[in-house]
Amino acid sequence: MSETLSNAARLCRELIRCPSVTPAEGGALDFLEKTLGAAGFSVSRPVFSDEGTPDVENLFATIGSGSPHFVFAGHTDVVPPGDEAKWSAPPFSGEIRDGEMIGRGAADMKGGVAAFAAAALEFVSQRGADFGGTISFLISGDEEGPAVNGTVKLLEWAKAEGHTFDACIVGEPTNPDKLGDAIKVGRRGSLTGEITVTGTQGHVAYPHLAKNPIPGLVTLLSALNALHLDDGNERFQPSNLEVTTVDVGNPASNVIPASAFARFNIRFNDQWSLETLKARVDEALRDAAPDGLDWKIAFTRDGSDSFLTRDDALISTLSSAIHEETGRKPELSTGGGTSDARFIKTYCPVVEFGLVGKTMHQVDERVAVADLDRLAKIYRRFLDSYFPVK
Amino acid sequence: MSETLSNAARLCRELIRCPSVTPAEGGALDFLEKTLGAAGFSVSRPVFSDEGTPDVENLFATIGSGSPHFVFAGHTDVVPPGDEAKWSAPPFSGEIRDGEMIGRGAADMKGGVAAFAAAALEFVSQRGADFGGTISFLISGDEEGPAVNGTVKLLEWAKAEGHTFDACIVGEPTNPDKLGDAIKVGRRGSLTGEITVTGTQGHVAYPHLAKNPIPGLVTLLSALNALHLDDGNERFQPSNLEVTTVDVGNPASNVIPASAFARFNIRFNDQWSLETLKARVDEALRDAAPDGLDWKIAFTRDGSDSFLTRDDALISTLSSAIHEETGRKPELSTGGGTSDARFIKTYCPVVEFGLVGKTMHQVDERVAVADLDRLAKIYRRFLDSYFPVK
Ligand SMILES: [Zn+2]
Ligand SMILES: [Zn+2]
Repeated sequence: MSETLSNAARLCRELIRCPSVTPAEGGALDFLEKTLGAAGFSVSRPVFSDEGTPDVENLFATIGSGSPHFVFAGHTDVVPPGDEAKWSAPPFSGEIRDGEMIGRGAADMKGGVAAFAAAALEFVSQRGADFGGTISFLISGDEEGPAVNGTVKLLEWAKAEGHTFDACIVGEPTNPDKLGDAIKVGRRGSLTGEITVTGTQGHVAYPHLAKNPIPGLVTLLSALNALHLDDGNERFQPSNLEVTTVDVGNPASNVIPASAFARFNIRFNDQWSLETLKARVDEALRDAAPDGLDWKIAFTRDGSDSFLTRDDALISTLSSAIHEETGRKPELSTGGGTSDARFIKTYCPVVEFGLVGKTMHQVDERVAVADLDRLAKIYRRFLDSYFPVK
Repeated sequence: MSETLSNAARLCRELIRCPSVTPAEGGALDFLEKTLGAAGFSVSRPVFSDEGTPDVENLFATIGSGSPHFVFAGHTDVVPPGDEAKWSAPPFSGEIRDGEMIGRGAADMKGGVAAFAAAALEFVSQRGADFGGTISFLISGDEEGPAVNGTVKLLEWAKAEGHTFDACIVGEPTNPDKLGDAIKVGRRGSLTGEITVTGTQGHVAYPHLAKNPIPGLVTLLSALNALHLDDGNERFQPSNLEVTTVDVGNPASNVIPASAFARFNIRFNDQWSLETLKARVDEALRDAAPDGLDWKIAFTRDGSDSFLTRDDALISTLSSAIHEETGRKPELSTGGGTSDARFIKTYCPVVEFGLVGKTMHQVDERVAVADLDRLAKIYRRFLDSYFPVK
């Protein structure tokens, strides 16, 4: 039946058949290199390494010349399939059932890569390489892994190679329910803090000879739970704090422990920077800390600031393409977790739009074949508008 | 120099030389059996076992007949010496330096056992076995261990053998600083509770799809920390609650955990029973729990009620002996941790008096040789008063 498949669906199935569980390349980048290379793209395959993390293969492909330079960002690595017996079709087969293609990565995000590849190949085959700008693929093999040897280093590498970008779409699944629901135009930031309260170990029968660190920690955590950061704004949800763990690890019920630990994470909007937020948390803790409490706060290094894309032309060009193809006016969303867009935003304006995310990371991850075709058409409409015939 | 040692000091050194780290007998009970047996005591060596705990040897020795029946309770097992290199003399040598005998168990409580043995041997050698009552030794090998196969079962065993007791002294070190400081005439009770709050696991970026159990647990712990149980009374300190551990064990800073756990212990006075205290804690938690919080409290089975000895004759006989020998009027104390007296109190009136406890369980545990002699003399005076010549 393959003759009845669209290019986007055919490419998606080929990619799903590559078992590229992070950090394995699995043949997915080889396939993309072959496909894009045959269409005239110049393809590079930089491998990055870092102490303590696996080496990762990546791909950069580019065609055309000069500005505007549009870059599509994505990844071909996928999370493990889990118990394969629970899948209704093998997770690396790309079988189609009831109009849906089943497979690990179908939604996140081999389907998005396939749709953009189909769109770009068609665009280039019609317009040639001299279409008045540059189109590039920036494909990480480490989005689902530690995210150390993927997009971050690929961006640095591309910059060193002389590439400068004017706009980026990340093809992550952004639609909660139906294709066209939402573009991500920003992301909240993330800040993780760790509190340690130190006391003096002792016996519960002699509390005056010990100093229990737990009541002080409970007081600090009460203050964090009561901390009202903001009410959100037209583009962002309210910032939110969650205490994620509290650990003392004292097995003896007759012993007052020597120290107590807690960790919390804040997802915060553009009313805060990492620095102003750290200062606010620090102030709230200082205000709450009982006199004489021996406590400290440390913030982990993996915090990231929020961002909001202010390139209205990029947003409206993509929104129009979506509206023309689906009849829907996408919500401009900033909800959900972090993505590689947090790294790209310092290089060029970036938005995210891809498939429906409902089944991502789950058993029977799948995508409607019709959605693959429509996403390819949306991306094609976008390229047509972004690179108008002069 | 052994010819210059008193009987109490000689017996103490022999016991210290037995490496009876709980649950090992280490030769200590063999030595007691030989020593008491030679003086006419009838000696039994019951061994008790229980699933999941080591078998433990114990000793019961008795002389005389009829009532009053006085029993001395103690233990020969000791806690491990720790790093022997830190000791200024080998921990199982009983070396004497500057008038102090150094060794594990010197204060807790081989010294107490030795002093009472010296007193009883002298008493019996002068008064004979027909002194108008019965004197027994109830010696556990499991006081520093799980306390399952020691005093509890030894009391049941003695009852089954037909022994009934009229008064007991436990020879634990009761003096904070100087011999004669304090008799323990009661002990606080102990209650341990465990709180579990159940939530729904999820991603910190989607808190509305999860339910964090930690804020609810923090609220419950705040209520426990604020709980005022009582102000104490003339015989007891105020009851005191300590949260001893809080554990979530969630390593992922982007995950809201599914449940949270805390344990607390209360040392409580005679204004509470285990049952009234459980009800009070339960009420305080119920009052504090936010609506809809999924939480539960469980109390561990090893709780013990407080007790207060009401046998004024026993207390005054011992107090007078102490005062006559040391010139001090001992405080009638109920402070500190639990002891085997909590098991004995249901069989007969019980008080505790022994050596100075400052160095117990520490490196260089030690006892003044002069204190061993004086404690033996106090015990001897007590026996003389308790069994007056008719
Ligand atoms: Zn993804
Ligand atoms: Zn002891």
